[in-house]
Amino acid sequence: MTMTFATIHDLETPSVLIDLDLMEANIGVMQSRCDALGIAFRPHIKTHKIPDIARRQLEAGAKGIACQKVSEAEVFADAGFDDIQIPYNIVGARKTRRLAELAKSAKVTVTVDSQPVIDGIAAAAQAVDSTIHMMVELVSLGQRTGTTPAAALALAKQIQATDNLNFAGLMIYPSDAAIRPRLLETLALLEAAGIPVATVSGGGSGAISDMRLLPELTEMRVGTCIFWDWNSVSADYAGFDNCAMRVRASVVSANEPDRVILDSGSKSIQSETIDEQFGYIAEHPAARLYKVNEEHGYVDFSACGFTPSVGDIVHIIPVHTCVVTNLHNQLYGVRGDTIEVVWEVAARGLVW
Amino acid sequence: MTMTFATIHDLETPSVLIDLDLMEANIGVMQSRCDALGIAFRPHIKTHKIPDIARRQLEAGAKGIACQKVSEAEVFADAGFDDIQIPYNIVGARKTRRLAELAKSAKVTVTVDSQPVIDGIAAAAQAVDSTIHMMVELVSLGQRTGTTPAAALALAKQIQATDNLNFAGLMIYPSDAAIRPRLLETLALLEAAGIPVATVSGGGSGAISDMRLLPELTEMRVGTCIFWDWNSVSADYAGFDNCAMRVRASVVSANEPDRVILDSGSKSIQSETIDEQFGYIAEHPAARLYKVNEEHGYVDFSACGFTPSVGDIVHIIPVHTCVVTNLHNQLYGVRGDTIEVVWEVAARGLVW
Repeated sequence: MTMTFATIHDLETPSVLIDLDLMEANIGVMQSRCDALGIAFRPHIKTHKIPDIARRQLEAGAKGIACQKVSEAEVFADAGFDDIQIPYNIVGARKTRRLAELAKSAKVTVTVDSQPVIDGIAAAAQAVDSTIHMMVELVSLGQRTGTTPAAALALAKQIQATDNLNFAGLMIYPSDAAIRPRLLETLALLEAAGIPVATVSGGGSGAISDMRLLPELTEMRVGTCIFWDWNSVSADYAGFDNCAMRVRASVVSANEPDRVILDSGSKSIQSETIDEQFGYIAEHPAARLYKVNEEHGYVDFSACGFTPSVGDIVHIIPVHTCVVTNLHNQLYGVRGDTIEVVWEVAARGLVW
Repeated sequence: MTMTFATIHDLETPSVLIDLDLMEANIGVMQSRCDALGIAFRPHIKTHKIPDIARRQLEAGAKGIACQKVSEAEVFADAGFDDIQIPYNIVGARKTRRLAELAKSAKVTVTVDSQPVIDGIAAAAQAVDSTIHMMVELVSLGQRTGTTPAAALALAKQIQATDNLNFAGLMIYPSDAAIRPRLLETLALLEAAGIPVATVSGGGSGAISDMRLLPELTEMRVGTCIFWDWNSVSADYAGFDNCAMRVRASVVSANEPDRVILDSGSKSIQSETIDEQFGYIAEHPAARLYKVNEEHGYVDFSACGFTPSVGDIVHIIPVHTCVVTNLHNQLYGVRGDTIEVVWEVAARGLVW
């Protein structure tokens, strides 16, 4: 955290602003929703990648954090976090070795969906005699990683029988209510086998509204809810008024209303789309950000009834906030026009 | 440049490999094509962002470099490059001040397409008494930045009449042959006004094949031709056998042939697509990389007749090489399996 700018008007563009009032409100709302259901909230830090923000989430009542990879977990462990979940199949001798080392100084929980993943992690943990907590992932509607109830039982038994591993429970992503029959089937299999399930970890922005329909959940992992984004608004998880992240951009060319060019392209706001648009321009909802190159955002202002001028500033609500964070070295925490904090994105762009 | 790994088998995944034989061949081919036409080649460094690679391009005969923003130019000027073009409208007091400072130690050429851009840069150059070389950009088929022939004439006159600016010529991107009538019209207007045009700078991978149809070009700016990518293959600029960049990835889940999961997602290979695929798996052309999350690549192996195993390695030819470079801290220059050089991506992720 350094302090170099007084107001947003001093910033170069593109810069990523975080509205602190909105962020704080978002932290409070998510914690309250979990508290009301008796579910622990475990913020996924991939959205912000900043220890200071995670600390604010813990102060509001969150339980531990989730990171998406070993390198992110290392950054947060160095920053003092001691309960870190990595809901991912950690594969490869170098990565499992680092994971096992990390588990010497923090409680580390991972997920697995196959025997080879268990074997790799077990060998690494045994080599340095640390303990890895391990959840089995059930395949969900997203059809990503995860396995079946019967296979989950077999994996849980294997974890229980392996030195230096602790069976920690089940993980689901996304934890939509529709997955409940599969979850209940798995829990019944585990109960019949006498295997206790300490944690049922759900996750996903879209699954927040389903939490009350899954009383088996003991914790919920969500990242995006701290900032929200156009994806969230489009899916009706939040409104634009809840979106705390905005990318401040300058008009660099404005020779025609239908090709107004911003200095923010795929290197600043990424290239994911909603309705063939690459971001939502907060000041001009009728403007369409219809194309990006690396350093150019193309905006059609035809429907706005005016053409902006070179040097004009706009603020873009990104389609997907997590990938924007990953592209920037700093986020600027602002209240109104005042910059209150400059955060280094500590876990930015780590690929391992 | 550091040397930590002996072979690619020692690398963690995802890692970005550059096949040095292919890269060297690509450097030679592009230089030869320009030499044959008497056109100077000015490599655009946005593709690699690495001074050592730019130096190899200059050694092969290239004239100066192109960067896409002031921050990239600063990195390359610090590395000793003294002829730097930034084909971009530089807008904003902080950026123009840095540009003007940069012009004290290197020859700096920018492009403009409107009077306000000229005014901002002129004020900055006058404040520190440096000289900025300035080209006027003609709007091309891409309908991005750029202006009309008549406006270009007016801007050229304005540049000529302004202290600390030097009118350097015309810029076109992309410089497809179809733009020639507009270019000729502009050149005629400038000639009639007695304004000499030292440089006509073309650019764009797709415009390479049109160079011979635009004899007015004095130089060509291209980035991607050093590595090529699936975009290039899809557009028939190159073949997969010319693609020097590959992202080495691991299989982390393989419970079903149609949802084999790699550890490379939008944070490693970005989220641009061709034919709804996010990358081309070199070893398994029939596999479809049909979806990415930040840390997950979803591959359908159904058409391959087999399902890979957890821990298996694949190499992905990315859709768009430039945005991949921007996501990584290192590129690994390899010959066969041997890692010959580890490059830090010096100008990675600079947003200003």
